[in-house]
Amino acid sequence: MEMLDSKQLTNHLKQILEKEDYRFLESEIFDYHPADVADSLKRLHLDQISLVIKILTNEFSGEVILEFDEDLRDDILGKLSSKEIAEEVIEHIDTDDAADVLNDLSQERQEEIIGFLENAEHATDLIDLLNYEMDTAGGLMAKEMIRVNINWNVNKAIREMRRQAEEVDEVFTIYVVDDKNVLRGTLSLKKLLLTQSVRTPISKIFSEKDLITVLDTESSDEVAAVMEKYDLVALPVVDVNNVLLGRITIDDVVDVIKEEAEKDYQMASGISESVESTDGVWVLTRARLPWLLIGLVGGILVSRVIAMYEDQLQVNPTLAFFIPLIAAMGGNVGVQSSAIVVQGLANKTLDYNGIFGRLGKELLVALVNATICAVVLLAYVLVFNSEAALSYTVSISLFTVIIIAALFGTTIPLLLNKYKFDPALATGPFITTANDVIGLFVYFIVARFMYGL
Amino acid sequence: MEMLDSKQLTNHLKQILEKEDYRFLESEIFDYHPADVADSLKRLHLDQISLVIKILTNEFSGEVILEFDEDLRDDILGKLSSKEIAEEVIEHIDTDDAADVLNDLSQERQEEIIGFLENAEHATDLIDLLNYEMDTAGGLMAKEMIRVNINWNVNKAIREMRRQAEEVDEVFTIYVVDDKNVLRGTLSLKKLLLTQSVRTPISKIFSEKDLITVLDTESSDEVAAVMEKYDLVALPVVDVNNVLLGRITIDDVVDVIKEEAEKDYQMASGISESVESTDGVWVLTRARLPWLLIGLVGGILVSRVIAMYEDQLQVNPTLAFFIPLIAAMGGNVGVQSSAIVVQGLANKTLDYNGIFGRLGKELLVALVNATICAVVLLAYVLVFNSEAALSYTVSISLFTVIIIAALFGTTIPLLLNKYKFDPALATGPFITTANDVIGLFVYFIVARFMYGL
Repeated sequence: MEMLDSKQLTNHLKQILEKEDYRFLESEIFDYHPADVADSLKRLHLDQISLVIKILTNEFSGEVILEFDEDLRDDILGKLSSKEIAEEVIEHIDTDDAADVLNDLSQERQEEIIGFLENAEHATDLIDLLNYEMDTAGGLMAKEMIRVNINWNVNKAIREMRRQAEEVDEVFTIYVVDDKNVLRGTLSLKKLLLTQSVRTPISKIFSEKDLITVLDTESSDEVAAVMEKYDLVALPVVDVNNVLLGRITIDDVVDVIKEEAEKDYQMASGISESVESTDGVWVLTRARLPWLLIGLVGGILVSRVIAMYEDQLQVNPTLAFFIPLIAAMGGNVGVQSSAIVVQGLANKTLDYNGIFGRLGKELLVALVNATICAVVLLAYVLVFNSEAALSYTVSISLFTVIIIAALFGTTIPLLLNKYKFDPALATGPFITTANDVIGLFVYFIVARFMYGL
Repeated sequence: MEMLDSKQLTNHLKQILEKEDYRFLESEIFDYHPADVADSLKRLHLDQISLVIKILTNEFSGEVILEFDEDLRDDILGKLSSKEIAEEVIEHIDTDDAADVLNDLSQERQEEIIGFLENAEHATDLIDLLNYEMDTAGGLMAKEMIRVNINWNVNKAIREMRRQAEEVDEVFTIYVVDDKNVLRGTLSLKKLLLTQSVRTPISKIFSEKDLITVLDTESSDEVAAVMEKYDLVALPVVDVNNVLLGRITIDDVVDVIKEEAEKDYQMASGISESVESTDGVWVLTRARLPWLLIGLVGGILVSRVIAMYEDQLQVNPTLAFFIPLIAAMGGNVGVQSSAIVVQGLANKTLDYNGIFGRLGKELLVALVNATICAVVLLAYVLVFNSEAALSYTVSISLFTVIIIAALFGTTIPLLLNKYKFDPALATGPFITTANDVIGLFVYFIVARFMYGL
C-alpha cells in the first residue's frame, strides 16, 4: 500500500455518512492504514468523526484516535463516555500510548476509565505508568515486551514468547531476566534463529554484552541522547535494583528529538511555548506576546541610549541614517554565534574543555567577517555620502560591534548552560536587545570622537 | 553497561600508547561499546587514533570509525591506504554505512577500495548504492535484509533466514518476495513464532496488508515523512516494478529528521550551510558572511529610507529615538509569523486549503499583539517624553508595522513554498530587512502627518 490521497477517502466517508450506510466502516476500511483513516477523518465535523469512531471496531478505532493530534483527540474524547473510552480506545492500545491519552484527562476521568478496563494486568500497568512524569524514561516506556527467564531452555522460551507475542506488536529485543525479574541480558532473535537445538539453555546463548539501560527516573532528553548515541531501536528501562520495568521504542523518541530541535527554533524565533499553526488565537498570542513585550522594553531602552546623544544628532542628523544598520548587524552576529553554541551543546559536540578554543575560533571568524563588512560599508559611505567623519564612524563602529556581538553571543549561552538555564534563551530577544544597546553606545562614542565633539 | 565516563577511557588509552603495550586493544576493549570507544579516541591526536584503529580487529575498527563525525572520519581515512580502508572498515560494516563512508572520497579512491574487497556480493551491492544520490531513498537504504520466497514453507524459510541472519544485524521485518524478487508482502516474526507447524507454506501466513514501500528515487524528506506518519522502524525500498531493492531503518532517518529541523533553525539564525561548532574558521565564516552581507545591504537600504526624511529629522531629532524600536518590532513579528508557517509546512499540519484561515487567524493574533504593544508604548512615551505628536506617531506606527509584518511574515513563506523555494528563507535576513524598510516608511509617513509637516 502506497501513501494514498486522503482527500478521496474523506469524500467517500462523507457520502457514507450522508447515506447512513455504514457497511464500508465494518469491513473495507480495514484495508486502509489507521494513519490514513485519521488523516481523512480530520476534515470532517467533530460529530461526524465521533460517529465514525463509535461504528469502527474497538481495536481499529483505538489506533485511529492515536493518530490524531492532541487537540483533536481531546475533542473526540470529550464526546465519548468513560466506558466508551475504556472499551474503544484504552483497552486495545499499547500501555505507553494509553498512558499518553489518559495523561491529558482529569484524574477523576482517568480513574473512571481505568475502572472500566476488562484486562486487569493492563489496568495495573497503566496505573503504574501514570505515576511517572511524562518527560521521564518511565513516562515514555511501554510495559509490553518479550521477556524470558534465564533458567529456561530454547523450547520453553519459544513457547512463552508465543504467548507473549500475542500482545506485543513488534519484537525488537528479547530481554533475559532472572527469577527476581532483574535484567540479566538480551537474547537476539538472530541467535535464537541460529540455535539448532531446542534443549539449549538460554543462559548459554544470551548476551550480557552491550546491555544499555536507563533508569525510570531519567529525563526524556537523556533517553533520546542514549538511543541516538548507541543507535538503539528499543531501550530497556530499569529501577535502581536493575529490575526490568519496561522498554522504550525509537518511534516515541523521534518525537522527543524533534520537539527538542523545534523548541530551539521557536525560541530563536521568539515563540515561548510549543505552538503549531493549528492552535487557537489565544494560544498563539500567549506564546508570542511576552517576547514582543521584551522586545518593546528593549526598544525603549535603546531609545533612551539614543536620547542621551540628542545633541549630537541635532548637529549631525545623518548619524541617524545608520542607527538601524548598527543595531541590526549586532543582533545578526549575536544570533549566529549563539545558535552555533546552542546546537553544539544540544548535540554534545561542544564541551567545557573547549570553551577557550571556541572563543578563540569565534574571535577569528568575527575578525574576518567584521573586516569584510566594515570595508564594504566604508566604501559605500565614502562614495555615496562622501562625509569622511561619517564613513569612519560607521565602519569603525560596525567592526567593533561585530566583534563584541560575537564574543557576547558565544559567552552568554555557555554561561546560561553552566547555570542550568536553557542556552537557547540567548538566541531570543534578550541578546538582540543587549547587542542593540551596546552597539549604539559604541556608535555614538565613536561618533563623538570622530566628529571631535 | 551504562554510559561511561569517556574521559577515563581516554586516559587509559593514552597510557597504553605511551607504554606501547597494546594487549588492552586486543581483548578488553571489546567490552566497550564502539560509540564509547570513538568518544574516548576523539580526544587523542590524529596519529594516535589511526594507530589504535590499525591495531583493533577489523570488525571493531569499522564500527568505531562509523561513530566519528564526518570531519574526523575523513581525516582518519586520509591516514589509511585503500587496502586498509577496504579491509578494516568497508568489508565489515553494513552497505548503507559503507556507501556513506565511500561517498566522501574521490571516485578514484572509491574504485580502488572496492577493488580490494574480498566479498564480491558486498562489492556489487556497494557499486549499486553509490549510483544513488545521497538524499534519496536509494542513498539511504542498506542491501542487508531478511527475505523469504513466497513459495517456501516455514521450515525452508527458517533455514534460509538462519543463513541470512549471519550478515544482518537486526531482524525487523521479513520480506516476502516471488521468484522475480517482486515484493509481495511481509511476514511478521510474531506470526512465525505463533505458527505451530513447520510445513505451513509462507503464502498462507504472510501479510499483504499495510505494506508500505518507497521508490528508490524518492527524496529522503519524503522517506522521513512516510516513516514518521506510519511509525515504521524499517521501510522496504522498491523500483517501479515493485522489485525489492533494500530497506531503510529508522536510525538513518532520525538523522534526516534532525538535520531538517536544524536546517530551519540555522536558516532562522542566519547560517547558510550545516555547520557545527567544531568546524574550521573558514567553513564557519563562509556559512555566516553571506547573511551578514545581505543584512549589510539591507541596513544600507534602510539608511536610504531614513535619508529621504532628513528634513524631518532635522526639525524633530527625537524621531530618531524610536527608529530602532520600530525596525526591530517589525522584524520580531515577521520572524514569529514565518517560523510558525515554516514549522507548519515542515510538519504537514498546514495545507493550502487553510491559507485564508491561516491569514485570518494571524491577523487576529496580530491585532491583539499590536493593540497591547501600541498601548504600552503610547503610555510610556506620553509619560516620559510628554510630546503628544511623538507618542501618537510611535504608537500608530508600531500598530501598523506589527499588522503588516504579521501578514508579510505569513504570506512570504507560503509563496516561497508554492514556487518550490525553501520557506525557511523567509525567516532569514530578507524578511527582516523588508520589514525594516516598510516599517520606517510607515513611521516617517505617520510622523509627517502627525507633525503636520
